[in-house]
Amino acid sequence: MSESRFEADYWMETAIDPRKAAEFMAGEQSSGTFVAVPGETEELKARSAARVTRLEILDDRVPAPSLPSAGLEVAPGRFLTRALVTLSWPLDTIGPSLPNLIATVAGNLFELKPITGLKLLDIRLPSAFAEAHAGPKFGIEGTRRLTGVERRPLIGTIIKPSVGFDAAETAALVDQLCRAGIDFIKDDELQSDGPGCPFEDRVKAVMRVVEAHADRSGRKVMFAFNLTGDLDQMRRRHDILLAHGATCLMASLNSVGLVGMLELARFAELPIHAHRNGWGALSRHPALGWSYVAWQKIWRLAGVDHMHVNGLRNKFAETDDSVLASARACLTPLFPDKPCTVMPVFSSGQSAAQVPGTWAGLKSTDLIFAAGGGIMAHPHGPAAGVTALHEAWEATLAGVPLADHARAHPNLALALGAAA
Amino acid sequence: MSESRFEADYWMETAIDPRKAAEFMAGEQSSGTFVAVPGETEELKARSAARVTRLEILDDRVPAPSLPSAGLEVAPGRFLTRALVTLSWPLDTIGPSLPNLIATVAGNLFELKPITGLKLLDIRLPSAFAEAHAGPKFGIEGTRRLTGVERRPLIGTIIKPSVGFDAAETAALVDQLCRAGIDFIKDDELQSDGPGCPFEDRVKAVMRVVEAHADRSGRKVMFAFNLTGDLDQMRRRHDILLAHGATCLMASLNSVGLVGMLELARFAELPIHAHRNGWGALSRHPALGWSYVAWQKIWRLAGVDHMHVNGLRNKFAETDDSVLASARACLTPLFPDKPCTVMPVFSSGQSAAQVPGTWAGLKSTDLIFAAGGGIMAHPHGPAAGVTALHEAWEATLAGVPLADHARAHPNLALALGAAA
Repeated sequence: MSESRFEADYWMETAIDPRKAAEFMAGEQSSGTFVAVPGETEELKARSAARVTRLEILDDRVPAPSLPSAGLEVAPGRFLTRALVTLSWPLDTIGPSLPNLIATVAGNLFELKPITGLKLLDIRLPSAFAEAHAGPKFGIEGTRRLTGVERRPLIGTIIKPSVGFDAAETAALVDQLCRAGIDFIKDDELQSDGPGCPFEDRVKAVMRVVEAHADRSGRKVMFAFNLTGDLDQMRRRHDILLAHGATCLMASLNSVGLVGMLELARFAELPIHAHRNGWGALSRHPALGWSYVAWQKIWRLAGVDHMHVNGLRNKFAETDDSVLASARACLTPLFPDKPCTVMPVFSSGQSAAQVPGTWAGLKSTDLIFAAGGGIMAHPHGPAAGVTALHEAWEATLAGVPLADHARAHPNLALALGAAA
Repeated sequence: MSESRFEADYWMETAIDPRKAAEFMAGEQSSGTFVAVPGETEELKARSAARVTRLEILDDRVPAPSLPSAGLEVAPGRFLTRALVTLSWPLDTIGPSLPNLIATVAGNLFELKPITGLKLLDIRLPSAFAEAHAGPKFGIEGTRRLTGVERRPLIGTIIKPSVGFDAAETAALVDQLCRAGIDFIKDDELQSDGPGCPFEDRVKAVMRVVEAHADRSGRKVMFAFNLTGDLDQMRRRHDILLAHGATCLMASLNSVGLVGMLELARFAELPIHAHRNGWGALSRHPALGWSYVAWQKIWRLAGVDHMHVNGLRNKFAETDDSVLASARACLTPLFPDKPCTVMPVFSSGQSAAQVPGTWAGLKSTDLIFAAGGGIMAHPHGPAAGVTALHEAWEATLAGVPLADHARAHPNLALALGAAA
């Protein structure tokens, strides 16, 4: 790919000639408009127009449109077409700006009348983007350094109930989890700094427990405090985290947005645990929105360190193949000299039962394996839940089937029974 | 509605008992999780749980799910249900925080397995949100004051070609448009500060023309310069706008995101023209994502002054009813003491032909009526295009059919002919 251009791949469905549809997409997102206008000269187009660099027909007998289009008429007996389309733009129009990249590759395109389905599959960026962005400050290596966990996944959990605990109740649960050998704990994305559980109170109470545990064990449990808020609030909360020795912050990507995340990543002195809640609205329909493969590239360049990817056999609507593709994407370098790899975070209905499949699908231990109910609702309590997850990973990494390992490990056996 | 709670309305489709589905939504977005956990006491639930305050079945014979759900089994002969659901949350969990509001009303909900369709229709916020947010600094009144336009819509246009002009070429077109009597001009959302047309060069060249025109006419054309970028860039570009007498800035909502917009609105001393590109990904499928009615409330509270609403018989996929509902929403007060109303911006394939329908549907002149090709591609050139739009609004506001008015107004006649 040229160093002076950037590209995006789309799955596209259209009611018109697919070549015309692809050219229409390119025109709408660069120098064209719906009608010819004075000034749109051949010289200007050569300099500024987007180009269709790939058009691969997947299916030309699609009977009905995936998305509604007001006023679009498909003649009886006519079919729609599905195709893979790649567009290429000159970098000169936007420079290496992520906000302007989004307006270009994922702007008005989703609303074009003759396009009855559009999924942004991937983006490819020239090295100017690598030079212009810091990327993750901590990433996988920094997270391992801060937690002291090597050669296995971080075992994590979520404070549950999601909301409702005050600071002292949260800290009491954290105490229990630290004793059980947890590596990582996160706030729920619903919990930030409401009057019911103020941020500073929670940080003080939780870090007192975490520090006391670290004094005993020599390892500091990483707690991702959700500081999602406006910019001043996030700055203030970040400083509270630093003052109390916290080692991670959490932010909701779709609540904060890109410019807020760029700014947070600029001033943050702690790893950024990025929560993707709201992602379903951008992705759940197969013929609309973003693929995670494209989406996560933006946030990694912007500087996050951990990215949520859902989990196998999750309680949400996503397939296992999609979850694994997302996690692999997080571990695939963005640029040869600037990999920007981040820790994929597996969560949602996770338990010991999903460990072998996660390993088989990813063949990496660079991940956070987070279980909420899977730990908290273990029949013998949270400590047994953590132990069971450790046992499941030990067995899996040693090539031992869980059922075999469970015979001598009752906590694992109970976890598998509870998950069944 | 209680002053201590906030609410959201959803259109929901589910494969399970709709009452259970609604309770599941409420649980997932407050104190519940997939399994019962220690600590989720009745007292905690009473304090922190979301409540289902409305469940209205729309259709209990839905034959197939709107959205895919991995692992969801719908037994043969079983139907799905569509319903209207209202959830209510205690304000105490989040306080009046817009970012945390989004994570609550539009977070993981879109991914729940038993929910096969979810559209956020509306939100209702207690007055604490009004107190915590400034809202639009200019709004309708400020925009009219800065442009000197009263008792009719602002006639606007977009720089076309969207990208490719340098600063001098852009200014030459602006000169032509100013002479033609335009009220408002905007950058294309693809144009911000790329090397091909640097922001400062463009501002200097354009404002020289705008100021010269204002010196002659006594009215300053409002040019919305697209400053979309990271926070430092937006600050710097904003200061460039102030230094050169500009009267409006533009930002892409989905590129900047909520925290960036909150911050921009805090420091901006100019009206914020909010572009919604990317909105299609959040909204185009009828069973997924956001309604504009809910979405625009967030941005108005955050402080934008103009909101794009598409236009009648637009070149995109949206229906006219949806466009008008969006525009009416922008003009509907958010709070009795703090209306936060903003100028709806009609655009996309707009021309004189859509003027009567726009007036009939909105019965307000508080809008920006923007035509790109509809002005630039007028057979007699842009000046005739602007004149035709003025003539169309004059006729419509006087109750005269366009065809009648066109008989004595050749520019209008040509515009209608070109649009036909």
